[in-house]
Amino acid sequence: MTDRILTPDELEAALRAIGAERYHNLHPFHRALHDGKLNKGQVQAWALNRYYYQASIPAKDASLLARLPTTELRREWRRRLEDHDGTQPGTGGVARWLKLTDGLGLDRAYVESLDGLLPGTRFAVEAYVQFVRERSILEAIASSLTELFSPTIISERVAGMLSNYDFVTEETLAYFKPRLTQAPQDSAFALAYVKKHARTAEQQKAVLDALKFKCNVLWSMLDALDYAYVVPARIPPGAFRPDPQA
Amino acid sequence: MTDRILTPDELEAALRAIGAERYHNLHPFHRALHDGKLNKGQVQAWALNRYYYQASIPAKDASLLARLPTTELRREWRRRLEDHDGTQPGTGGVARWLKLTDGLGLDRAYVESLDGLLPGTRFAVEAYVQFVRERSILEAIASSLTELFSPTIISERVAGMLSNYDFVTEETLAYFKPRLTQAPQDSAFALAYVKKHARTAEQQKAVLDALKFKCNVLWSMLDALDYAYVVPARIPPGAFRPDPQA
Repeated sequence: MTDRILTPDELEAALRAIGAERYHNLHPFHRALHDGKLNKGQVQAWALNRYYYQASIPAKDASLLARLPTTELRREWRRRLEDHDGTQPGTGGVARWLKLTDGLGLDRAYVESLDGLLPGTRFAVEAYVQFVRERSILEAIASSLTELFSPTIISERVAGMLSNYDFVTEETLAYFKPRLTQAPQDSAFALAYVKKHARTAEQQKAVLDALKFKCNVLWSMLDALDYAYVVPARIPPGAFRPDPQA
Repeated sequence: MTDRILTPDELEAALRAIGAERYHNLHPFHRALHDGKLNKGQVQAWALNRYYYQASIPAKDASLLARLPTTELRREWRRRLEDHDGTQPGTGGVARWLKLTDGLGLDRAYVESLDGLLPGTRFAVEAYVQFVRERSILEAIASSLTELFSPTIISERVAGMLSNYDFVTEETLAYFKPRLTQAPQDSAFALAYVKKHARTAEQQKAVLDALKFKCNVLWSMLDALDYAYVVPARIPPGAFRPDPQA
């Protein structure tokens, strides 16, 4: 990073370059997941841990919503809460994620209890919630920009999982389909906001660092899964243990 | 856990049972470290990441100090700050930890910059600081109780590292010697406090959960190190990369 002020398009290019190096589609666990290299217990572990991330997203969005200064911004951010929390019981992204864990044969009360969560998942997710709570509005919005890269990973994941796992169905993966239209809408707004409001070199650095931080959150969630459940399995005390028959 | 109220001695036994199952002396990375199974770059990675934990301890103690209600408690907790921050430049536990990273050949400015930190280390340490900031004084004090188990791990570590690594000297390990007397003094106070003040079943559960949480913090720091630097090395983007010649 130089201290030169970037044009908005240069800032966008720098943000996209961070994704090209650090987004979790490059993580070996993601590749194993969509290449069909995991067994059912390992896919369960992924879905169970990722549930905590999904369930925390509307909470982090609510904490940002509470700090946004204009109707326009709040309306935009409130839409994200609606996407994740739904409009009535059983709707929204969190509920759809539970259809995924249901479809994988996990007990819903166990998933929601968070009892089997890896500590690495907990700490990464809570770091994200805390970041959005404490940092500037600009940084909080910038940290959502991993959604620039998510349509690609979702397409890879859905196609790969459907073709490689007989225990995965289109219905199980119902979470992902709406995200293919929601994420681009969300990230287009956030990217335009960041390009408009990150004007000084310090603000631009903060924005780039916020995206790196968020990539680290997602990456380290997969580190924890890969370490505990894949190579070689070293499940920490108290975390979810797959049924050897699964 | 039943909901029966434990006697103070039963509570102590339950706390010690948590350590027997979850303290990080049981982690494969700790065993590899003290058995001489690591190369210098891996030991550097441990010292560099652990630096952030050491440097954060007085900050977490200060946040608790600021909330303690009595002279007696503040005096006790102030002693912990003195142990870690010292009384003048170059003294105290954090400065002694930098002698360890110096002795391992790491650049001090790089260590202090935290640039090469693993995200897993950052999130675990920050979760601990946040826990102490947000939870009850009872839970915050209980989360320090991993020190009940630390004299054993320190003895193992010092003896093992001195006999197994030619790049480690007694001077490099100067951090640990004072901890052999400080930690028991700290943990005796904290244990007595917890045994006296955790009177209801809810409080006792909170105390036990606080110690489990803290064990998870330490354990997941070693998970991140083991995953990134040992089996098989999968260093995440941006983290410290050992010199292959080290």
